[in-house]
Amino acid sequence: MVQKIKIGIIGAGRIGKIHADNLLRLPQVEIVAISDLFANAELEAWAAERGIATVTKDSAALIADPEINAIFICSSTDTHVPLIKQAAEAGKHIFCEKPVSMTLSQTEEAVEAVQKAGVKLQIGFNRRFDHNFKRIREHVEQGTIGETHIVKITSRDPNPPHKDYIKVSGGMFMDMMIHDFDMARFLAGSEVEEVFAQGNVLIDPVFAECDDLDTAIVTLRFQNGALGVIDNSRQAVYGYDQRVEVFGSKGSAAATNDHPNTAEISTAEGIVRDKPLHFFLERYNAAYVEETELFIEALLQDKKVKVDGYDALQAERIARAAKLSVKLRRPVKLSELHELT
Amino acid sequence: MVQKIKIGIIGAGRIGKIHADNLLRLPQVEIVAISDLFANAELEAWAAERGIATVTKDSAALIADPEINAIFICSSTDTHVPLIKQAAEAGKHIFCEKPVSMTLSQTEEAVEAVQKAGVKLQIGFNRRFDHNFKRIREHVEQGTIGETHIVKITSRDPNPPHKDYIKVSGGMFMDMMIHDFDMARFLAGSEVEEVFAQGNVLIDPVFAECDDLDTAIVTLRFQNGALGVIDNSRQAVYGYDQRVEVFGSKGSAAATNDHPNTAEISTAEGIVRDKPLHFFLERYNAAYVEETELFIEALLQDKKVKVDGYDALQAERIARAAKLSVKLRRPVKLSELHELT
Amino acid sequence: MVQKIKIGIIGAGRIGKIHADNLLRLPQVEIVAISDLFANAELEAWAAERGIATVTKDSAALIADPEINAIFICSSTDTHVPLIKQAAEAGKHIFCEKPVSMTLSQTEEAVEAVQKAGVKLQIGFNRRFDHNFKRIREHVEQGTIGETHIVKITSRDPNPPHKDYIKVSGGMFMDMMIHDFDMARFLAGSEVEEVFAQGNVLIDPVFAECDDLDTAIVTLRFQNGALGVIDNSRQAVYGYDQRVEVFGSKGSAAATNDHPNTAEISTAEGIVRDKPLHFFLERYNAAYVEETELFIEALLQDKKVKVDGYDALQAERIARAAKLSVKLRRPVKLSELHELT
Amino acid sequence: MVQKIKIGIIGAGRIGKIHADNLLRLPQVEIVAISDLFANAELEAWAAERGIATVTKDSAALIADPEINAIFICSSTDTHVPLIKQAAEAGKHIFCEKPVSMTLSQTEEAVEAVQKAGVKLQIGFNRRFDHNFKRIREHVEQGTIGETHIVKITSRDPNPPHKDYIKVSGGMFMDMMIHDFDMARFLAGSEVEEVFAQGNVLIDPVFAECDDLDTAIVTLRFQNGALGVIDNSRQAVYGYDQRVEVFGSKGSAAATNDHPNTAEISTAEGIVRDKPLHFFLERYNAAYVEETELFIEALLQDKKVKVDGYDALQAERIARAAKLSVKLRRPVKLSELHELT
Repeated sequence: MVQKIKIGIIGAGRIGKIHADNLLRLPQVEIVAISDLFANAELEAWAAERGIATVTKDSAALIADPEINAIFICSSTDTHVPLIKQAAEAGKHIFCEKPVSMTLSQTEEAVEAVQKAGVKLQIGFNRRFDHNFKRIREHVEQGTIGETHIVKITSRDPNPPHKDYIKVSGGMFMDMMIHDFDMARFLAGSEVEEVFAQGNVLIDPVFAECDDLDTAIVTLRFQNGALGVIDNSRQAVYGYDQRVEVFGSKGSAAATNDHPNTAEISTAEGIVRDKPLHFFLERYNAAYVEETELFIEALLQDKKVKVDGYDALQAERIARAAKLSVKLRRPVKLSELHELT
Repeated sequence: MVQKIKIGIIGAGRIGKIHADNLLRLPQVEIVAISDLFANAELEAWAAERGIATVTKDSAALIADPEINAIFICSSTDTHVPLIKQAAEAGKHIFCEKPVSMTLSQTEEAVEAVQKAGVKLQIGFNRRFDHNFKRIREHVEQGTIGETHIVKITSRDPNPPHKDYIKVSGGMFMDMMIHDFDMARFLAGSEVEEVFAQGNVLIDPVFAECDDLDTAIVTLRFQNGALGVIDNSRQAVYGYDQRVEVFGSKGSAAATNDHPNTAEISTAEGIVRDKPLHFFLERYNAAYVEETELFIEALLQDKKVKVDGYDALQAERIARAAKLSVKLRRPVKLSELHELT
Repeated sequence: MVQKIKIGIIGAGRIGKIHADNLLRLPQVEIVAISDLFANAELEAWAAERGIATVTKDSAALIADPEINAIFICSSTDTHVPLIKQAAEAGKHIFCEKPVSMTLSQTEEAVEAVQKAGVKLQIGFNRRFDHNFKRIREHVEQGTIGETHIVKITSRDPNPPHKDYIKVSGGMFMDMMIHDFDMARFLAGSEVEEVFAQGNVLIDPVFAECDDLDTAIVTLRFQNGALGVIDNSRQAVYGYDQRVEVFGSKGSAAATNDHPNTAEISTAEGIVRDKPLHFFLERYNAAYVEETELFIEALLQDKKVKVDGYDALQAERIARAAKLSVKLRRPVKLSELHELT
Repeated sequence: MVQKIKIGIIGAGRIGKIHADNLLRLPQVEIVAISDLFANAELEAWAAERGIATVTKDSAALIADPEINAIFICSSTDTHVPLIKQAAEAGKHIFCEKPVSMTLSQTEEAVEAVQKAGVKLQIGFNRRFDHNFKRIREHVEQGTIGETHIVKITSRDPNPPHKDYIKVSGGMFMDMMIHDFDMARFLAGSEVEEVFAQGNVLIDPVFAECDDLDTAIVTLRFQNGALGVIDNSRQAVYGYDQRVEVFGSKGSAAATNDHPNTAEISTAEGIVRDKPLHFFLERYNAAYVEETELFIEALLQDKKVKVDGYDALQAERIARAAKLSVKLRRPVKLSELHELT
């Protein structure tokens, strides 16, 4: 392995820029190039400030650059699979945002291409690196709570996304709850076997117009017999609500929200504290930093990545099963997916 | 209405005695008689200490006693329906423990008999009178949290019951989760339309032997479109776990457990506090007192009772649907129950 | 000792009636008589409802009644010492509200009279029986937190008392903080050696008119070298604030307030919970019950009482030292009290 | 003002390096030189990695460097005053760690030199920039809690410092509690008038050997009549304990500790959470970043600094009064300091 990892970033949207800034803090990393379909003078200025030499509209050229060791794929979801394939064929390691694709067969192809090429692929399931959820997982692994019986996840956004985003998002299960599907696997330490989903449009009719949901509860049955439940809402007016609980034979481990401060104000009206950290950029700031650090560490030390293509595939399978469950109004087994789709 | 309510209690088990002691604190109440199939000298001594004149094995005689205005039915579930019918025919008001029966048609008959006789029937869904859950309901009613989107209930017992009890309990949904079905209706302010249940035996094989479950997650769909979820376990080693959360368009209202004290101990090992109040007698002590007070108040002031026969019927319908859902492995609508059973 | 303790109550104000009702719950207790300077038809009705045979204005007659075993002294503070002396001479056991008197020499006389007569005297320091503070004390005794270094007590009332009360109250230290002085001794497990008090009138000028304070911070130095601090306010608009913390070589034990429920409401404005239990009647309800139960138990089983005359004396000594410290603007040792007063 | 602030750092110990790294994140800052009496190859390597051109043992040369706009003084306390004077005379802005000196007259000289030179001086009272304490201050300023009546501060270290440090630390009040004295002024919005200190050696006799204390409680009287109390311990085995509370006519604002995560583990033994963030580097990490950012902002925009020489002076005066109070065993007014020292 080279001494300094040289990186190319594809996609200069919000998440691409966050990864760039987090990578730039690492002494053994150099960002060589960034590509974006809409690259312009502004992006060039942004890159110049950070010492990123090349700004291009041509992702293929970036992938072909022999100097580059690893590619960060931060472009729109529909581009993920072709880019993963190209990068894998070019022998580059890959960090790809979630989901890999909206279609299981395509994600499977991408994962196969990665395996064939023998490169590393890490998926952007950043929540696995959150300080609270990691601590819960540690307790599960250490056996503090015994055998897992129930996994509960609450995940609610402070505000719904814009209609333009909703249309192309792939729907609540693939776009939003997919993080929770990954978290459920991460915490339960067992694979999901069966999925039942209930959903509704209670917040904004725009979701119905886009054939989507804004409120959903999904129950999971794991292979080890444990049960799980996830609830999602596109709008919690009190802020980003991100909690998990694992209950088992020896007890429970539960993590509540992070708050901007611990101040508690007591007045004649009651006792008040500030709302949770506003949204994912605030709540998962440190987790974004850590996922890139650990990706770079995996490259430098030739170790396995913490979240790989199989993890992406499994989360997408659960999302697919959830979507089918709503349509068929019945529980759906992951083993049925092949015949149902 | 008489100045002093004269009461007969049928069933001198634990719950019968609790109601007796709570009733004896009320100045406008006199307990005239108590009946129990196994009435003995010990019960006579217990009654004498409390100034209860008559102890009998004959519940029919107790019901027939013209001096008695109201009957507390605290005997085993299989006796509830015949006793309700007899008491209603005798023109007595009735307080009956939950569930009314294991069979919907029988519960319907009992409720009809009560309506026909024009007497009052209150069901022992004591948790509606719990200080925490009442406060959540108040906020829901006052509109603090807007329209209800999600109702979440966690209910876990500290220890499983004895095998003898499990056998005749009617199963987890009818015996244990029935409280949560009532709570879901109480908090949501809407009727349940559809039920999906996932369950398993993860704690003790004895539940499988009794064709029962020890761990279950049930999702609900309410008529107003809101969704609900309840999780139950027969054994939370850290104690009685009784929490609810209602999430809506303007926020959420959540109640956690009660603890025996607020002491927090910080040592080199971590920060520790005592477990929640041990079990239902400790947690719902004040709720038991209040449900009897309000029943007596309803009699004295000829008001509607807070939990009536219809509430019993609805909770039992949801329990029945949950049981069917496990069997059929699909969601079950309450409107289907008639044809399915 | 007799099988049934027969009790006379002197003083039928709020606290006298609370003790009466708590005593009436105990099977081995009979209240024989109640006396009050302003006994009237209303009090007679109140007593009749409770089966208390005698209502009188004559406390001497009540004390002289040979049927009575124990006297509850709930009359105004200035009557405590003569009544304790009379009761002790008459061989009655005594429960007396705090403080015993405003003058150390008088309290000493009362305590001597009790010792000479060999009767039991329990003082109404009800907070020792509070579920939170008892739990802290247990941890201190069990050595959980090692050797005590710091004791911190916060005690703030929701509303100032009426001017008529302030005038005769004996001042903040003797009337209000005396509970905290007792709590400090209870928790520290060591005697107070030196006291320094800072006080001010920040809430209502009426306190200045009465030569009193409404806000004070008192630091304590214990014989074992530990330090303590108590802060008091006559008006915490958010309600009754009663917290303690003991810090030691192995950790800390802290108890916060009790709340009427655990409900937490999250809205766009923040996260809110209800204020603490309103005032001492709500917060210390169970503690009042327990102090009378344990007094009766001490009589029945001829055991030592949990809070005795020496405890009264010590708390009053600390209160006296605090008052002197404000006047002299310097720390005052308890050993100096004799020469200073 | 120049476009890019050029900085020289004096003292390359732990705190000097922290400030360096925090400054290097700021685009408008360049660190030109760092000086240390023990500058060696290791420091040169450290500086080279960060692009700091000059490493020297000669602080005078660094101060004289015409390229440098501002000096960070992070060397030992005894060097602060001469360095401040030199830097001020050279027309450099100054950031100086606390305390400025151990002797009030010297600190006064330093502050005068700064005023005379018209340069900016910011003191390293980093806690003013802590997210929790800032929020409390905001509420005090906004009037949420009305007029301030009581300020309470708890500040306990996880471990005592090494004996070598204790000897030269200036004692508990000047070294440790000085942060709390500044915090008291920051939160109360009023100057301290009088100080009373109680202290003891309860943790380690080494403190007595060094004529120091390891446990102390200090009461404050503010000019506006409010009262304050601070407790300090050199060893809280459960970790760094940093809490404040401001109580006033309209309520209270209280901030508790920060924790590394929100995970709560419930088992048969009780409910446990992790200890607070370990020590000042973890707890005040973001506050260190913010204090340097705001210092640079004050230079760039020619604004007043947030904590100036007067703030240093006042905190040192309170520390001096506390030390005298222990010696004289009586409260000491700040106005007396002149005649007492």
